[in-house]
Amino acid sequence: MNALLTDLYQLTMAAGYWQAGKCGEVAAFELFVRRLPANRNFLVAAGLEQAVDYLLNLRFEPEEIGFLRSLPQFANVEAGFFDYLREFRFTGDLFAAAEGTPLFAGEPILLVRAPLIEAQIPETYLLAQVGFQTLVATKAARIVEASGGRAVVEFGTRRAHTPQAGVFAGRAAFIGGCAGTSNVLTGMKFGIPVFGTSAHAWVQSFPSETEAFRRLQALLGPATTYLIDTYNTLDGARRAVALGRPFWGVRLDYGNLMELSRAVRSILDEGGFHDAKIMATGDLNEYKILELVAGGAPIDVFGVGTELATSSDAPSHGAVYKLVQLETGGEKRYTAKYSEDKSTLPGAKQIFRFPDRDLLACSWECHMGAEALLRPVIIGGQLVAPLPGATEAREHARAAIGRLPRKLKSLFEVEPPWPVGRSVALEQLSAEVRRNEMEVAR
Amino acid sequence: MNALLTDLYQLTMAAGYWQAGKCGEVAAFELFVRRLPANRNFLVAAGLEQAVDYLLNLRFEPEEIGFLRSLPQFANVEAGFFDYLREFRFTGDLFAAAEGTPLFAGEPILLVRAPLIEAQIPETYLLAQVGFQTLVATKAARIVEASGGRAVVEFGTRRAHTPQAGVFAGRAAFIGGCAGTSNVLTGMKFGIPVFGTSAHAWVQSFPSETEAFRRLQALLGPATTYLIDTYNTLDGARRAVALGRPFWGVRLDYGNLMELSRAVRSILDEGGFHDAKIMATGDLNEYKILELVAGGAPIDVFGVGTELATSSDAPSHGAVYKLVQLETGGEKRYTAKYSEDKSTLPGAKQIFRFPDRDLLACSWECHMGAEALLRPVIIGGQLVAPLPGATEAREHARAAIGRLPRKLKSLFEVEPPWPVGRSVALEQLSAEVRRNEMEVAR
Repeated sequence: MNALLTDLYQLTMAAGYWQAGKCGEVAAFELFVRRLPANRNFLVAAGLEQAVDYLLNLRFEPEEIGFLRSLPQFANVEAGFFDYLREFRFTGDLFAAAEGTPLFAGEPILLVRAPLIEAQIPETYLLAQVGFQTLVATKAARIVEASGGRAVVEFGTRRAHTPQAGVFAGRAAFIGGCAGTSNVLTGMKFGIPVFGTSAHAWVQSFPSETEAFRRLQALLGPATTYLIDTYNTLDGARRAVALGRPFWGVRLDYGNLMELSRAVRSILDEGGFHDAKIMATGDLNEYKILELVAGGAPIDVFGVGTELATSSDAPSHGAVYKLVQLETGGEKRYTAKYSEDKSTLPGAKQIFRFPDRDLLACSWECHMGAEALLRPVIIGGQLVAPLPGATEAREHARAAIGRLPRKLKSLFEVEPPWPVGRSVALEQLSAEVRRNEMEVAR
Repeated sequence: MNALLTDLYQLTMAAGYWQAGKCGEVAAFELFVRRLPANRNFLVAAGLEQAVDYLLNLRFEPEEIGFLRSLPQFANVEAGFFDYLREFRFTGDLFAAAEGTPLFAGEPILLVRAPLIEAQIPETYLLAQVGFQTLVATKAARIVEASGGRAVVEFGTRRAHTPQAGVFAGRAAFIGGCAGTSNVLTGMKFGIPVFGTSAHAWVQSFPSETEAFRRLQALLGPATTYLIDTYNTLDGARRAVALGRPFWGVRLDYGNLMELSRAVRSILDEGGFHDAKIMATGDLNEYKILELVAGGAPIDVFGVGTELATSSDAPSHGAVYKLVQLETGGEKRYTAKYSEDKSTLPGAKQIFRFPDRDLLACSWECHMGAEALLRPVIIGGQLVAPLPGATEAREHARAAIGRLPRKLKSLFEVEPPWPVGRSVALEQLSAEVRRNEMEVAR
C-alpha cells in the first residue's frame, strides 16, 4: 500500500544499503521544520494518525516490485533485494509529539528509529503528510485566533491541492481549532462535524430567489442558511425575513462584509430575528477576519476556504527528515550536517517543555519539572496504544496553545520568540560530532 | 468511490433538487479561471484524465449513504432520495480542452452538461483536481521556459500538500514540460520517466565520502549521480573524479550554484570528464534558474521541488464552476451572475482559437479558420474515445505553447495579453440574460 509513493532515490538507496550489508544498522531520523514560516510564532503538529497508518501498512506488492525491476536504475541490483522487499515490514519505533502540540523551529515532530532501509523509505511520505497537516493546523490556529471566539468552518476542498489534500486539510483545520469542515468524507472518516449552506447555482436554478429560499427551508428546516447575494444582498435578507421561521441564518459571500453584515443584521433584527446568524465567506484569511472582528462586524461564523486549505501565505515550510544516528553492532555513531545555513544537531532527541521555555536534549536525558513531548507511538513495529482521535487532538491543541504566552498568538512575528535551549549534553555531543565529521571529510 | 469527497452542500442541494422534482432538468456548468495568477500569461490545462476517471466511476456505496442518513442535514429528506443515490451514475456529457492546451482567463477548461444533480455533485472534486494539476502544469511551463533547453525534473513530493498531491504534481509537471519526476508511483501509474540521485543520509551512513561514492557507483554504474556537498563540494567533485568511470554526473544541493557549478565543471573537465553532467537542486524556482542560465552557469539539469509541487508563488488560482444554462422539458434557460467583481457569461460556450486570438462563443456557433478547443470527451455517460496519455499531453503542450507569440512566454505579465474576444451572439445572449435576471431579482 503506497510503497511506491516515494522518491526513487529512497528505493535505489535502499538497494544500495542492502547490497552494502547495512540491513542490520539501526538509524534514527528526525522530522522537523528548520525555520517557522513568516509571521508564525509556533506550529501545531498534525498528521500523526496518517503517518502511523502508513508505517503499519507499508508493503510492496508483487506488481510494484515488478515495476521497480523494470527500471534501468535497478538493472544491477541483486535479486535478493527484491526478495527482501517482498517481506518488507516496518519493524522499528516511532516517537512523536501528540497531534495538536505547539512546536517550534528545530524541534522534532517525529523521530523514527528503525533498520536503516525501513527508516529511509518513509521519508517522502512522512514529510508530505505530516508537513502538510502541520501547515494547515498552524494556519487554522491563526484564523481561529483572529476570529475572537466566533466559529470558523473549513470550506477549502475545492481549492486544495487535489481532492485528497482537501480531506486532510479538513482534518488538520479541525485540529487547529475549526468547528468543522464542508468535506463530507473528512466527516465520515474522522468523526468531524460537517457543515454546508447552498450555492448560487441553487438560487439560479429556481424561477425566483424566494422560491429557491422556500425550497431550501422545506429541506433543511432550522438548519437553513440562505445564500443571499445572488442578486442583491439586502433584498435577499428581506426575502429571508419574509419567509419567517424556521431558519438558522444567512450567508454573505462577497462585497464589503463590514457594511453588508451591519445592514443585514438590521434587517434581521427589524424582522424580529435576533437569533438568526450571519455567516461570511469569500476569500477570507486571518487578517481580513481580524479587521472585521476589530470593526465590530456582526458576523457569527466565518467560512474559510482557499487560504486555509492551501496555507496560501506560506504554502510550504521546508520540513526536513535528517539522519541523526546510526547503530552498527552495538556501536552508536552520531551524525549531523554543519553547512552554514542548513546545519543539524546529532543524536536522537527529546523535547522538554517547561512552563516558560523548551529544552532540546539527548533522548536519554531526564529533566525535572518539564514535560517530555516525544512519546513512544510504535515500538518494534507495533502500535503502543490507540491514538487519540481528531476531537481529542483538537482539545489538546486548544489547551496547549492556551498555555502559551498571549503574545505568541500574535498574527505577526514577536520578539523574543519562545525560548528553545539546548542541554549541555546535546551541545557537547554536537561539538564532538563536528570534530569527527571534519576528520571524515579530510 | 469518492462520492463523499465533496462539500456537504453539493449533497444537500442534490436532495433539494430531487425533492423539488428537478431531476429531469439538464444543467451546464463551466469550470474556468477568472483571472490568471500574477505573472502568468497563460495556463496549461491538466487533470482531465483524473476528472474522467472520477465521473465514470462515481458511485454511492451503502456505507456512504448510511453516513448521509445519519447527518442532521438529511433528517427531513425523503427516503426516495437515498434510493436515487444508490442507483446514481453520471449519465451526462463532458466537453474539455485537451490536456496541455494553453488557456486564458475566462475560458472553460471543462464544460459539464448533465441532469442537474449529476452536474452539481462533481463540482468540488473537479475544481480541486483540474485546478491543482493546471496550476502545476502552468508553473512547470514557466520553469522549463526559464531553463532554456536544459532538462527540468520534478522532485517535490515531500513538500506537496499530502503524498497523493505529489503523485499528481509529478504528472502535471511532466505535462507542463518536465523531463520526469522522482515520484515512483507517478512513473508507474502514468508511464512517466523517474529520476533520482542519492541523499546526504547515504553519504553520512558510510565511514567516508569516497566509500559512499564507490558503493553508489557499484550500484548504479553509468547512471551514478554523486551528491557532492555533504562535507565540501569541491572535495566531493575531486573524489568523484578520482573514482573514474562510469558515472553520469554530480549534484549540487546548496550554496552559490553559479560559482560552485563553474568550479565543479573545471574539476570535472581537468579530470577528463567533459561528458559528466552537473545537476542543481535546492529551493530553485524559475527566477533563480533564469539567473543561473543567463549567467552561463554550467548546469545541465535542474531538479525543482517545493516551488513546483506547491506552485508556491501562486498556490491557488481561484478556479470556479458556474451554472450557465438549464434545460427543462425542451425549454432552455440561460443563467449568469452580474456582480461587479465576479460576473459570468451565460450559456454553454466554445473556445475558437485563431492564429492570433481566441474567440469565446456560444457552443452552437461555427467560425472558419479557427480550432474549436472544447471537444466531446464523455457523451451520455460513455467515454467517446481513449484519452491521450501524459506523454501525448506533454507533446501537445510543447507544440501548442510553441505556437504562442514569444512574448507570452515571459515570466512576467505582458501587455497587451493574448486577445480573447466574445462573439456577437454571446454578447447578445449576455445582454438578454442580464435583463431577465434583473426581472427575477425584482
